[in-house]
Amino acid sequence: MGSKYRIWSAYGNEYSCGMNFNEEQVISEISSIFSPLNKKNPRVVVGIGDDAAVVATNQHSVITTDMAIEDVHFKREWSSAYEIGSKITVANLADVYAMGADPQYLVVALTLTGNEDLEWIKELAQGIADTANASDAAVVGGDLSRGQNIMISMTAVGASRLHITRTGARVGDSIYVSALPGWSRAGFEILSRNLAESPAFAHALSQFKSPHLDPAVMRGFKSAHALCDVSDSLIVQAEQICNASLVGFEIDSKKIEKCDGFADLAAVAETIGCDVWDLVLGGGEDHVLLATGANLPGVCIGRVVTGRGVKVSDMKKAPDTWRHFN
Amino acid sequence: MGSKYRIWSAYGNEYSCGMNFNEEQVISEISSIFSPLNKKNPRVVVGIGDDAAVVATNQHSVITTDMAIEDVHFKREWSSAYEIGSKITVANLADVYAMGADPQYLVVALTLTGNEDLEWIKELAQGIADTANASDAAVVGGDLSRGQNIMISMTAVGASRLHITRTGARVGDSIYVSALPGWSRAGFEILSRNLAESPAFAHALSQFKSPHLDPAVMRGFKSAHALCDVSDSLIVQAEQICNASLVGFEIDSKKIEKCDGFADLAAVAETIGCDVWDLVLGGGEDHVLLATGANLPGVCIGRVVTGRGVKVSDMKKAPDTWRHFN
Repeated sequence: MGSKYRIWSAYGNEYSCGMNFNEEQVISEISSIFSPLNKKNPRVVVGIGDDAAVVATNQHSVITTDMAIEDVHFKREWSSAYEIGSKITVANLADVYAMGADPQYLVVALTLTGNEDLEWIKELAQGIADTANASDAAVVGGDLSRGQNIMISMTAVGASRLHITRTGARVGDSIYVSALPGWSRAGFEILSRNLAESPAFAHALSQFKSPHLDPAVMRGFKSAHALCDVSDSLIVQAEQICNASLVGFEIDSKKIEKCDGFADLAAVAETIGCDVWDLVLGGGEDHVLLATGANLPGVCIGRVVTGRGVKVSDMKKAPDTWRHFN
Repeated sequence: MGSKYRIWSAYGNEYSCGMNFNEEQVISEISSIFSPLNKKNPRVVVGIGDDAAVVATNQHSVITTDMAIEDVHFKREWSSAYEIGSKITVANLADVYAMGADPQYLVVALTLTGNEDLEWIKELAQGIADTANASDAAVVGGDLSRGQNIMISMTAVGASRLHITRTGARVGDSIYVSALPGWSRAGFEILSRNLAESPAFAHALSQFKSPHLDPAVMRGFKSAHALCDVSDSLIVQAEQICNASLVGFEIDSKKIEKCDGFADLAAVAETIGCDVWDLVLGGGEDHVLLATGANLPGVCIGRVVTGRGVKVSDMKKAPDTWRHFN
């Protein structure tokens, strides 16, 4: 056939359009972070590299999606790439845990501006990989594009034998949080006020930049009647459970004061000129679980009552609601 | 208890930060488009509105993600909101079909600038809903944020009894396309050259703005040995199958010329000053399926041979590769 045919060989990879790296290089680097973990996971049948991933699923799955946009959800001068990757992963994993389910799979759509170092991108991927791996979740696919600012959009799929929504709270239930919320908001306040770095601020800063998620703690709430994660603030999410379950919440501020770390958070709040209750009740993005039921782990902070709305004992003023910064 | 308590009631929905609508309104409008469809779907256990959706899944699922960014993948002056929503949905559904699987669930992360009309957003959601519904896929969740430009990031989950990757092509297989590719690229060339609207351009324009996906045709390829969708161009994706399957492709340009619509596409190409083979071989985003095997639907365009690389008979020049415009 010889001359009848023309061989096309060195094609493709023209998507980068002026990026300071080519798409193949980025995908290769990212794949080399995620694929070895997938190869060890017998539930990942087809991983990264085809039209879609093929994974083993249970009879019921939970699906959730959460994105992070530069200068809306994170700033590169505040957080490392590793921290940014970890934080958006925690947000997605927490939503799966908040249904009483176990995270299994993640896909990541990533928009880059073209001005990032390859090293920065690898750190971002590593932050995603390590955080996913700590919850036994596999990153099985993604999409890469160029845009005006960095955007990470993630979808998590989890296995659910049971599922716990916001509708199950019953009058007489105790109310629990898996940990004291407010640290992430404290970190945000410290950063946005340009306060000097101080060892006293370390925990708040780390919880804002990369909130900690302990899979063992998150899995401990599977007998909850109602469950959600405190991504929007304790007050907002408590109201969501009240509205969905047609009940009222009585939160006892004295019980919150007994949470581990409350005195430390109050000291930070005073140093930076905040009301600690603005942080605890009105903060967000800690991805602490809020639950109702009996004999749950974490700290009991009140009880479910008849009526509607959230009452907090001994409070002087309403906290501000968390706002995206930009 | 009375005065001991303070009631928090009118909280939340502070995320909109200067948008000309509030988040609750947008979510309410979007939910009212997707939720009635979910309520009729017995496999959607928990739909939009909790931390995550809960859905019935099969033993194996496929997962894929694909995003569309304003001025990279679409322009608002070129495409209606409905077309934009439909197009990104087709891209995700096609990836599921391209694994030999059936789409079941979608989640959508949407970034808005704050300058959109609510009507525009509703049309976008309607385009997503109608396209998903035509493939029996349910939109079960999403995330909404503000950014500098519009971005739609979608994840599709599908049911897979078998799965067909790019690795299964065998020497002696016939090569098929589900339809003639190139129309989407023709539409892009017409729009980017600001050519006058002409009835002869209608199909090309509609395939660029909102490529047609026929679920019945897509489902007809489940006995393929190797399968992918032609989102990056016929040549690029043919090379991917060759590399993954360790085979060569002999594509017969005379057979492509016998595809339905080839003469029409060639006429459009001539009118706009393009080489029709640039469109057919080097175009993309048609989401036509490319398959190898025997007795498949669509059009046979060649055969799988020993060796590597893609040869096209009777071709004079290499087509340009598809590039994202911006």
